[in-house]
Amino acid sequence: MTTQVIVLNGGSSSGKSGIARCLQQVLPDPWLSLSVDTFVDALPRALKSSDAGIDFGTDGEVVVGPEFRELEAAWIEGVAAMARAGARIVVDEVFLGGAASQERWRKALTGLGVLWVGVRCEGAVAAGREIARGDRVPGMAAAQADLVHQGVRYDVEVDSTRVESIECARTIATRVADPR
Amino acid sequence: MTTQVIVLNGGSSSGKSGIARCLQQVLPDPWLSLSVDTFVDALPRALKSSDAGIDFGTDGEVVVGPEFRELEAAWIEGVAAMARAGARIVVDEVFLGGAASQERWRKALTGLGVLWVGVRCEGAVAAGREIARGDRVPGMAAAQADLVHQGVRYDVEVDSTRVESIECARTIATRVADPR
Amino acid sequence: MTTQVIVLNGGSSSGKSGIARCLQQVLPDPWLSLSVDTFVDALPRALKSSDAGIDFGTDGEVVVGPEFRELEAAWIEGVAAMARAGARIVVDEVFLGGAASQERWRKALTGLGVLWVGVRCEGAVAAGREIARGDRVPGMAAAQADLVHQGVRYDVEVDSTRVESIECARTIATRVADPR
Amino acid sequence: MTTQVIVLNGGSSSGKSGIARCLQQVLPDPWLSLSVDTFVDALPRALKSSDAGIDFGTDGEVVVGPEFRELEAAWIEGVAAMARAGARIVVDEVFLGGAASQERWRKALTGLGVLWVGVRCEGAVAAGREIARGDRVPGMAAAQADLVHQGVRYDVEVDSTRVESIECARTIATRVADPR
Repeated sequence: MTTQVIVLNGGSSSGKSGIARCLQQVLPDPWLSLSVDTFVDALPRALKSSDAGIDFGTDGEVVVGPEFRELEAAWIEGVAAMARAGARIVVDEVFLGGAASQERWRKALTGLGVLWVGVRCEGAVAAGREIARGDRVPGMAAAQADLVHQGVRYDVEVDSTRVESIECARTIATRVADPR
Repeated sequence: MTTQVIVLNGGSSSGKSGIARCLQQVLPDPWLSLSVDTFVDALPRALKSSDAGIDFGTDGEVVVGPEFRELEAAWIEGVAAMARAGARIVVDEVFLGGAASQERWRKALTGLGVLWVGVRCEGAVAAGREIARGDRVPGMAAAQADLVHQGVRYDVEVDSTRVESIECARTIATRVADPR
Repeated sequence: MTTQVIVLNGGSSSGKSGIARCLQQVLPDPWLSLSVDTFVDALPRALKSSDAGIDFGTDGEVVVGPEFRELEAAWIEGVAAMARAGARIVVDEVFLGGAASQERWRKALTGLGVLWVGVRCEGAVAAGREIARGDRVPGMAAAQADLVHQGVRYDVEVDSTRVESIECARTIATRVADPR
Repeated sequence: MTTQVIVLNGGSSSGKSGIARCLQQVLPDPWLSLSVDTFVDALPRALKSSDAGIDFGTDGEVVVGPEFRELEAAWIEGVAAMARAGARIVVDEVFLGGAASQERWRKALTGLGVLWVGVRCEGAVAAGREIARGDRVPGMAAAQADLVHQGVRYDVEVDSTRVESIECARTIATRVADPR
């Protein structure tokens, strides 16, 4: 089946969005790039730091509440519908709930060709990159490095610890099915 | 019918995204805010300045090509699906094609409660705000001020020329239907 | 004396940086635009939220500590030196200490032609614009609207409550001295 | 002599600003971080794409004109004055003119303790990172990788091709003199 959706899952500062941009450059067709950050940016400010929405703890843990979950479910349905309407989409995600998060996406994407990609990065290295970028709550990289992969099953895994984003993208691109 | 989608249409620098943020604050339920800018940001870089994608002329005119149109159609379907899945959504748009652009959204949103909002701003004032914000191609505000409203039909219109965004949002909010 | 430095002082969301960009467009010579935000961006992350540096309270008050003050004093000396070396500079400031803040700048700028500009905006209107922009700690606009002007003396004042940034800039520009 | 200024010189996408942020974290005292980007952001829009100011060619070359040079000279004087007034400063630069660019800074910084740091990155790797970040004119990384180091003399060099920013920062930090 033609790959219609590429789901990149990895912790904060593991290099997902850089890999997504490289995939857009490397793949021959035009792909949209949508991220959990796109969704969070679309939330009302009141939900961006509240128990009902999403809360970033001072030590990097992220907690999401029921109103976040409801809107997120609709977001996921919408992204799936974009793919069904013909768009190729790279989704850049952080499966805070591990296997349960994957299951939410899997249900919504039923019937579509999906490539599940694990983006690994050693926690200590991701933590260093978090300092270098300077725009994330410190501690998220270390807290999420292993957590987000628990119980998740992938078609392909890349490790950005010692491999550049563009090389990770090239590896992923070889697994994108296109029967033409 | 309960309003599920608010479509704000206006030219560049007419104040749409500020009004969208104010609506998120003013309305009692949580609303997502999605913009044509969200979509353009998701495009591959190669489509952001090409004949097949979107091109920003030096005098502020914007031309979009066939690959842009295909992905945009899928984007619109996806936003409609998010609303059908239960999300309330403020859509912030620039109807470069006037009535034809509205028709594309109208078809996709069939069956949903939609509030169509025209966001007017005198071209000269919008052009001044374009200079003040400093992050837009000069000329877009003037070029789009009237163009985007041609043949478009609204439920409510606001004029940001001499009215603050928060006041425009309050006016719009009174027209949002909620039968509870 | 030729005006070499324009100091814009006003509360958060009063429109200072927009007016600064309009001044750069309106004035015939090239002017640099430097802001207290430029300085805060240059601080180490550890000082951006600490008692020794700068702290943004949840109700919009801003408190700065001794290490902030030391670096700020050096920053001000440096900006004055840029002007002495020939650059024309628009400085966009928030005089949290009112007259005492002005005095710090006045000493550093001794011997230079300075135009002191008050940028007023009614607190309620600035608070609405703070919601519309969505990138500031809520409450700063209201907290600072009057505070920053206490005891400060100006050459010219503008009020952005009902006047566009580009018009405020034109008013200020008429007061810029250029003996050529 | 106590190190008062650290000058990082390297091509676009070689990792300078990430290293600068890591230095701010690693060094015990508070350091300001100022970049050539800080200066370019301060320029009037009209100079950001013109023969008199700075021009970014479609193949990544950067050309600066006489008005850019005049304001830049004042900027450099100002940064030096900040250091003389007591601030510790990391300067993140792109010596498009190689040795001649260094000479401009050297003259301005006379009498101050300066650590000259070369930030190397193989052109092909920097070009890949340019794609991953997605916010730079394509081609700058490759065009500048060797160019900016021609004739420049360093106290220490780091190579970000295969070493993380935080490690580069630790290497640099061991060379910062502090006689206390």
